[in-house]
Amino acid sequence: MTASTPVAFEDPQYREAVVDLLGAIAYGEISAFERLVEDAKLAPTLEDKVAIASMATAEFGHLAKLNARLTELGADPFAAMAPFQAAIDRFHEHTAPADWYEGLIKAYVGDGLANDFYREIAAYLDAGTRDLIVAALEEAGHSEFVVDRVRSAIAADPRLGGRLALWGRRLMGEALTQAQRVAADRDSLTALLAGGIDRPGLDLAAIGRMFTRITERHAERMAELGLDS
Amino acid sequence: MTASTPVAFEDPQYREAVVDLLGAIAYGEISAFERLVEDAKLAPTLEDKVAIASMATAEFGHLAKLNARLTELGADPFAAMAPFQAAIDRFHEHTAPADWYEGLIKAYVGDGLANDFYREIAAYLDAGTRDLIVAALEEAGHSEFVVDRVRSAIAADPRLGGRLALWGRRLMGEALTQAQRVAADRDSLTALLAGGIDRPGLDLAAIGRMFTRITERHAERMAELGLDS
Repeated sequence: MTASTPVAFEDPQYREAVVDLLGAIAYGEISAFERLVEDAKLAPTLEDKVAIASMATAEFGHLAKLNARLTELGADPFAAMAPFQAAIDRFHEHTAPADWYEGLIKAYVGDGLANDFYREIAAYLDAGTRDLIVAALEEAGHSEFVVDRVRSAIAADPRLGGRLALWGRRLMGEALTQAQRVAADRDSLTALLAGGIDRPGLDLAAIGRMFTRITERHAERMAELGLDS
Repeated sequence: MTASTPVAFEDPQYREAVVDLLGAIAYGEISAFERLVEDAKLAPTLEDKVAIASMATAEFGHLAKLNARLTELGADPFAAMAPFQAAIDRFHEHTAPADWYEGLIKAYVGDGLANDFYREIAAYLDAGTRDLIVAALEEAGHSEFVVDRVRSAIAADPRLGGRLALWGRRLMGEALTQAQRVAADRDSLTALLAGGIDRPGLDLAAIGRMFTRITERHAERMAELGLDS
């Protein structure tokens, strides 16, 4: 650890939790990268394929900084990612898009959900870790592309809207299921929300409000796509 | 076209040839990106997977500049790529790696071959186009990783060396086959080598020397990997 490591890290549980969180985000980025490139195969044109591949490489671009911070904290980045591989892989297995539009919505809505969740947790961390996470989750600015493609497809075939609305709900359900499994497995992450040296904690009511905010933002994204949530 | 377009572009055949060449390189980058991510699935560890994915994103990073130049020349980038899709896709279909090591060698040797070929042609173009191509083909500096992995695998299992040497020859053969098809199809590219306004041409002896240089560099790369060529 460097001299600039803040006081919160004097609590070994805190350090462990931050390593867990960064490891989960890092594996999430690798995994999102792979799946986006896989889904790009469903693109109807080479131009659409390149647009999705650009989203993928933007995700991957964040990895180096996360890994550098993990190393700085004395952790092996790949060992830090290992505990989250199964849950994240399972999420992707259970949400393999059947077509191009399901892939687009997964890229936009699924990614948005994960980012909101990590950002909510980051708000309770030391400033350095928070800034790193917020930067790693920065939108690559491709949402306009997804919204445009999905809205015109629904205009051309209104029945598609019903199927894609169901798909959005399924993504939300799978994300919650896998997040709960991780929370049950990793005490450090749940302890994180309880607070510690130099950090305020969250009570149950605050956790409830956090999930309300995440659900509301999910509904906003679905509405932007022209879909019921 | 901008005011800075050099005199060589007064020849419409030259412009057409440069559009063809940039289109071929651009589609090659997209295609290499996709195949590298696909091959990354064969990686024995998450660390190896990330190393290959980094090579892939480096390839993809060159695309934006190639596309910007194509647009500047008054071409639609995706239309410029279209004539080369079939040959490049066929190359990849015929050289799908059977395992992780075949994938590594393809990434290193196949990429090296294509880059040498494009760089040779670039030497006969106007300075602006040449610099753009040379920058787009810059090695991402991952060759050390590939050489290290392949050499230790052969040390552990010497029979692997024989199989991988054959594989390297097959990559070379397939690359030549597809390059010849493209040359037969696209008059503009073959005319390019014959010279034009403000540009010297190549005679048959010079083309022969060019292929000798490409073959020699291929042999050097194979030797670096510890393989006969």
